[in-house]
Amino acid sequence: MRVGIVGATGYTALELLRLLINHSEIEVHFVTARKEVGRCFSDVFPSFRGVFDQNFVALEDAPMLDCDVVFFTTPHGVCMQYAQYLLENGVKVIDFSADFRLKNADIFEKWYGINHMAPDLLKEAVYGLPELNREMVKSARLLANPGCYPTAVQLGFAPLLKMGLVDTRFLLADVKSGVSGAGRAAKLNNAFAEMGESFQAYALSGHRHHPEIVERLSLLTNKALSLTFLPHLLPMVRGIEASLYAPFKGDFIDLVALYREFYQNDYFVEVLDEGCAPMTRDVRGSNRVQMCPFYSLDKNMVIVSVVEDNLVKGAAGQAVQCMNLMLGFPEQQGLTQVAMVP
Amino acid sequence: MRVGIVGATGYTALELLRLLINHSEIEVHFVTARKEVGRCFSDVFPSFRGVFDQNFVALEDAPMLDCDVVFFTTPHGVCMQYAQYLLENGVKVIDFSADFRLKNADIFEKWYGINHMAPDLLKEAVYGLPELNREMVKSARLLANPGCYPTAVQLGFAPLLKMGLVDTRFLLADVKSGVSGAGRAAKLNNAFAEMGESFQAYALSGHRHHPEIVERLSLLTNKALSLTFLPHLLPMVRGIEASLYAPFKGDFIDLVALYREFYQNDYFVEVLDEGCAPMTRDVRGSNRVQMCPFYSLDKNMVIVSVVEDNLVKGAAGQAVQCMNLMLGFPEQQGLTQVAMVP
Amino acid sequence: MRVGIVGATGYTALELLRLLINHSEIEVHFVTARKEVGRCFSDVFPSFRGVFDQNFVALEDAPMLDCDVVFFTTPHGVCMQYAQYLLENGVKVIDFSADFRLKNADIFEKWYGINHMAPDLLKEAVYGLPELNREMVKSARLLANPGCYPTAVQLGFAPLLKMGLVDTRFLLADVKSGVSGAGRAAKLNNAFAEMGESFQAYALSGHRHHPEIVERLSLLTNKALSLTFLPHLLPMVRGIEASLYAPFKGDFIDLVALYREFYQNDYFVEVLDEGCAPMTRDVRGSNRVQMCPFYSLDKNMVIVSVVEDNLVKGAAGQAVQCMNLMLGFPEQQGLTQVAMVP
Amino acid sequence: MRVGIVGATGYTALELLRLLINHSEIEVHFVTARKEVGRCFSDVFPSFRGVFDQNFVALEDAPMLDCDVVFFTTPHGVCMQYAQYLLENGVKVIDFSADFRLKNADIFEKWYGINHMAPDLLKEAVYGLPELNREMVKSARLLANPGCYPTAVQLGFAPLLKMGLVDTRFLLADVKSGVSGAGRAAKLNNAFAEMGESFQAYALSGHRHHPEIVERLSLLTNKALSLTFLPHLLPMVRGIEASLYAPFKGDFIDLVALYREFYQNDYFVEVLDEGCAPMTRDVRGSNRVQMCPFYSLDKNMVIVSVVEDNLVKGAAGQAVQCMNLMLGFPEQQGLTQVAMVP
Repeated sequence: MRVGIVGATGYTALELLRLLINHSEIEVHFVTARKEVGRCFSDVFPSFRGVFDQNFVALEDAPMLDCDVVFFTTPHGVCMQYAQYLLENGVKVIDFSADFRLKNADIFEKWYGINHMAPDLLKEAVYGLPELNREMVKSARLLANPGCYPTAVQLGFAPLLKMGLVDTRFLLADVKSGVSGAGRAAKLNNAFAEMGESFQAYALSGHRHHPEIVERLSLLTNKALSLTFLPHLLPMVRGIEASLYAPFKGDFIDLVALYREFYQNDYFVEVLDEGCAPMTRDVRGSNRVQMCPFYSLDKNMVIVSVVEDNLVKGAAGQAVQCMNLMLGFPEQQGLTQVAMVP
Repeated sequence: MRVGIVGATGYTALELLRLLINHSEIEVHFVTARKEVGRCFSDVFPSFRGVFDQNFVALEDAPMLDCDVVFFTTPHGVCMQYAQYLLENGVKVIDFSADFRLKNADIFEKWYGINHMAPDLLKEAVYGLPELNREMVKSARLLANPGCYPTAVQLGFAPLLKMGLVDTRFLLADVKSGVSGAGRAAKLNNAFAEMGESFQAYALSGHRHHPEIVERLSLLTNKALSLTFLPHLLPMVRGIEASLYAPFKGDFIDLVALYREFYQNDYFVEVLDEGCAPMTRDVRGSNRVQMCPFYSLDKNMVIVSVVEDNLVKGAAGQAVQCMNLMLGFPEQQGLTQVAMVP
Repeated sequence: MRVGIVGATGYTALELLRLLINHSEIEVHFVTARKEVGRCFSDVFPSFRGVFDQNFVALEDAPMLDCDVVFFTTPHGVCMQYAQYLLENGVKVIDFSADFRLKNADIFEKWYGINHMAPDLLKEAVYGLPELNREMVKSARLLANPGCYPTAVQLGFAPLLKMGLVDTRFLLADVKSGVSGAGRAAKLNNAFAEMGESFQAYALSGHRHHPEIVERLSLLTNKALSLTFLPHLLPMVRGIEASLYAPFKGDFIDLVALYREFYQNDYFVEVLDEGCAPMTRDVRGSNRVQMCPFYSLDKNMVIVSVVEDNLVKGAAGQAVQCMNLMLGFPEQQGLTQVAMVP
Repeated sequence: MRVGIVGATGYTALELLRLLINHSEIEVHFVTARKEVGRCFSDVFPSFRGVFDQNFVALEDAPMLDCDVVFFTTPHGVCMQYAQYLLENGVKVIDFSADFRLKNADIFEKWYGINHMAPDLLKEAVYGLPELNREMVKSARLLANPGCYPTAVQLGFAPLLKMGLVDTRFLLADVKSGVSGAGRAAKLNNAFAEMGESFQAYALSGHRHHPEIVERLSLLTNKALSLTFLPHLLPMVRGIEASLYAPFKGDFIDLVALYREFYQNDYFVEVLDEGCAPMTRDVRGSNRVQMCPFYSLDKNMVIVSVVEDNLVKGAAGQAVQCMNLMLGFPEQQGLTQVAMVP
């Protein structure tokens, strides 16, 4: 099948190409980039020399209708302009931006600061987190690829919320991300000399992934839900760790066993043995999530530590996983790489 | 005045020497190290060449009684063997280990796995966090230098607890430390290839700093107190960030103003402007703590982000600060270095 | 076909498994490790959970004769004990150690400090650098996998030496390696807090890869050859850069064109455009080498900058490439992963 | 005495302030920065909160004539506009840029691409490398602070050239720098995600420090001199290592002894014992240079490994050292900090 990639100069696009190139059923038909039209992809990204040497085309020249799927690895506000047109022409759409993640256009507009140009599609759009809504993904035409933090936080909290084991008024997610999550951009804040050998919280007044997480977690419980969410920036390139906390209620159970049962059919989720702290390196370059749930010392809280590669399960890998489901391929196709350790 | 350092091969000892060498009132009289007796200090640590070229002596040969203060930068279990003897001979003692941090010998023995050999001194020992108990430090003869995490957590929570602004049954500290906190040791877990470009939680079943923090925080409030505490390991050398969370109760106030008033007389504590996330690099090599308190998005929680250099305010700098108070020097003497940025 | 891995706890073994698991023609039949017998591989290395869950066996219990190839990812001195026995039983051997790299047993013994137990096999053993001796590799039964530095240095110098363009009496290689090259070991020198944010030369009095490089380069020229070789340690996990220098002689030519012609049939060697400095990240996780030759400012020297992933083309990837040739598979089989950028 | 800093937003300016603030004889009278006029210095750089809280002023409002020394931590082309005016008014000038480093205005113009506006001052300007020209520095009114690479390369080569021990037609410097050397700028190339966990050569077609080194080394010998110079970028913040190579000629001597004698009166140069490789961390934050000379394995080359902190001895520390000499203070004043290890 043929796919195209719109906006192929960010890190998530690089990662998408890295995965698709070894996907036996997929041919990448075009890549676009406003500022690189006419340049060879592998001149801009030498790791692809001899592997993917197509030229960037302009978006207006991209043969989108010849594709089975078009990926948008663009900032928010782009996909919403093309989605209707592509769907009408039988082309499926997978959007890496937030355009179709939230069901509520008002919340979108509040957090992203632009008017939504395709609010009618919000209802049809499917949020692409197969472990929690696999059947919907299979039949999706327009897929909203989740944010990196939301993926880790939802997968970590889901069993607790579904089972009603915690007080949902005090959910807390202390999350940490490698700097590739901030994108490929010439910003002083992202400079090595600014953030190397340093660590900090950020977005103290609110992060855009916050409403996304709240909306999705609310679907897992009918209780009132309040989430405290604080992101941090790690002095490393890839990887997210989410430490999730919730007040425990009810009888003590074997949390590892519960989580393993919950995810027993999910190839990409690995629940570690009790006491084993997941390390981001163990999922580096892989589409896997590793996690471990446990009780706090005072036994009044459940804690879950979750790790993922923000560019794979947190972005490009998840998109390929969803694509596989949407196109009827095995869910793992092209995603069986083992994490790169060390 | 003359000081000696027992166990001078760890990172906290290196840092202590780095500070003392530029302290105009102090002369370092001896350094001991079991495995390095007879070797020149600056052969083992070339950064001190031409600056501190004394030889290591054996502990039994160390002229401890010629000193005004003896520092123990040893693992737990060592200082407790010498403290009584030194105090009887008029030598003050500053211990970097946990031997005299906890008032309750049973809790010490439970967490550290050894019998306490000097339980009678626990009462006299002063916990050395001058911002919270400066007057006691001034008159201390036996000083227990706090742990690195406890320093950050206590300083961050103290105003909230003293003012009774939070529900102390749900205190939560998600803390992250650079790897120098794990000490100077040949362990596979600390190898660059194992933990470089990776991040993880650790000590899931409990960390030794947990009871220390609980005991000290309990002195700040008369309410029942439960703390959830989870440490993480950062892929960098120095620096601790503590993200502290507590359910807010009461009327909304200006948290920054409150914190600034609380710490108005504390040179080493800096409360940042609202919305400014502290960065560990801004205190690297300095004895300062920077912090910022703020409300969660849902306004139901107070969050405080605190940074310190784990080897300075989290260890050697704090010890020098306490020594200054104990010896009647200005509190800042020898501690006015500006953080090394970048 | 079936392969076994002896000594599967080092980084090169992990990398070998990572590659073989996605090699469609290969089944990993056993892994041995002296200290881990009976443990599950993926308990020791969680990145393999659900992917490779075999137990470690003892070397004496390993079904070596059921394999087509046995890999030795052991320190020097092990493979030499088993090679004869395996070859006699029709099992091919690929050795990651130095046991069979040097043709001269005396030089081996001088640099490695042990007697060679199988000197008769040195003549038969094939040095596995397919770009320089592909036909020999195809027919090898006993393959000596090259060292990481020698791979980069030989590939960078080869065109110059073959063409006789430089003064071979003043070859110079200033090489830099990520710390994974030092192996998976609990050594203080490798600790993150020791080498993070630091850089240094090492092995000032001579490195074991020096005689290997000299012996192999000598095969490319009939001139007297002297090599100055200085390795350095980078504060990162993976990657080698070799900056090669040689006094230029002869008429000026287009070096990039020359190198591209020389390597025109080599999928794994990429010669960058003039002025493009290779970056180690562009080959991270990949079996590729990228290089760029150019003249010094004064035009009296040729410089070549070469990058490789020390664990892939510098070790496990090269071994798989050789295995493919030895077993008659396409040379690229299982090695088409794109580098992981960023 | 009073000093001012023009262009105080780069890393070298931060470092200069860090040093001057603990210099007992110096008061920083003003700081300028085009884009930050009116802002508080410590709002831009929080590590200085409570330590240096002056506001930035515009260059045209800066009370330059009230100062004894004005530092220019500006890009090239600025200091040349003010030097004459300041000197005429009795104010000494220390320039961190290249404006006055080269004696030959043509070479300056070729490499820096602008016309020199004050070529008449080139003769008076003193190049500030006290270990090689201390007496000239003492009497300087206009001081050109050397480049970071040139400092390391000159100090490493000087004894060899002065003693005539090497063939100066084949000098080679393979140098590596932490990323702070690239300055505080929002460039994609400097982003953590671009250069973290990666290493590369750069400036293949020539680096601006090349002519500076050649001009200065030429003063140390009357032989024809050719230098091959290749810089590399390290994935770390601070530190330079220079590996210097030259063909040896003459009788073998004890190189370490020779170097120690050469630098016996230089507090800031430390020659390590034979076989000890200098590490950049051992000079981090310090004004020291550490080096070790040795012979290559084939004894036909001399190699010198030199380390410095590029922001201290490679920039701000050297400037303070020169200032001390120019103002008659002890050379070490304000520069006795021990390196920050780890």
